[in-house]
Amino acid sequence: MATIEPRRGLLIVLSGPSGCGKGTVVSRILAQREDTVLSVSVTTRAPRPGETDGVEYFFRTREQVEEMIRNDELLEYAQYSGNYYGTPRAAVEALLEQGKNVILEIEVQGAGQVMHREPDHVSIFLATPSMTELERRLRSRGTETEERITSRLSAAQYELQHACDYQYLVLNDEIPLAVQRLNSIIEAESLRYSRMKTIMEGF
Amino acid sequence: MATIEPRRGLLIVLSGPSGCGKGTVVSRILAQREDTVLSVSVTTRAPRPGETDGVEYFFRTREQVEEMIRNDELLEYAQYSGNYYGTPRAAVEALLEQGKNVILEIEVQGAGQVMHREPDHVSIFLATPSMTELERRLRSRGTETEERITSRLSAAQYELQHACDYQYLVLNDEIPLAVQRLNSIIEAESLRYSRMKTIMEGF
Repeated sequence: MATIEPRRGLLIVLSGPSGCGKGTVVSRILAQREDTVLSVSVTTRAPRPGETDGVEYFFRTREQVEEMIRNDELLEYAQYSGNYYGTPRAAVEALLEQGKNVILEIEVQGAGQVMHREPDHVSIFLATPSMTELERRLRSRGTETEERITSRLSAAQYELQHACDYQYLVLNDEIPLAVQRLNSIIEAESLRYSRMKTIMEGF
Repeated sequence: MATIEPRRGLLIVLSGPSGCGKGTVVSRILAQREDTVLSVSVTTRAPRPGETDGVEYFFRTREQVEEMIRNDELLEYAQYSGNYYGTPRAAVEALLEQGKNVILEIEVQGAGQVMHREPDHVSIFLATPSMTELERRLRSRGTETEERITSRLSAAQYELQHACDYQYLVLNDEIPLAVQRLNSIIEAESLRYSRMKTIMEGF
């Protein structure tokens, strides 16, 4: 008889330009799927009011993060505005072993590091249907200066050049459709023969 | 602006032991999805009452099929009980170009030929949760002799050894679940970056 044993979860690398709706789509996926969690990054930046260690981030000192880097304890890391941000390998590994799908919501360079180091990943690039639409969404926030908008659009152009490094391209034309597309990818990738070995061995 | 052009359909290779419920699952997929069709095979066997040329099969003479083989007009072919069965390349290609996903419901050897010749395929092996369950289903038909059941179970063992050649393994424990799994695979595979080039070029 076949037994469906708790399988290893999927390591999901998700990127997309600022303003493409990543946060909203991810939060809906997490609300719908008990089998899927978001990876918590380490950072050296100070906690903001209301942030809790281990929830939004693991808050660590510069020395601690640099030691993690030396000990190869980060799946990927980068520096922004003088602070380190990274993905702790052990925390992600423990979740995958429990059978949880782990989403890493990271930018293209960190994503490249993870894809290189963890060949068994699922990589998804989320995009708006066009740059025009991305600009419209950034402007509609009403909180961004002209300079910030220009800088974000330029960053988006750079990120889009890396979309071809990802296995899947999901357009976020409408949020429910983008959520459904992500769900289909998670379902399908869970059915890959290479990930279902225990079932066939038990046949 | 990005334009979502009619993309090329998916070439879906579907196999699974006799009695695993392939026919039922495929007919539900076809009923639900306007974008997906079943490939019609050529055969040299005589039409049965009620069968129409071009619907169940393309009925051809032995000479015609052998000429198709010589002209490389079949994606795969095999002989059973003295008759040829094969998949006409031109018909499949025309449907893919129209943007239709084309399901080839074929046995493992024909499937191997298609996977080898058409690298851009989606291959799915459908299975019952166990051999015990497969035997139960074959017996529950009430139409099979003991000899036929033994022969089908032995064929199933052979086919299962080839499950590892397929990209996806779908368990047909419950038909609606198996249908949903196939739908997820079709949705996800349609989102592969390599198949969405026209969109990114238009970005």
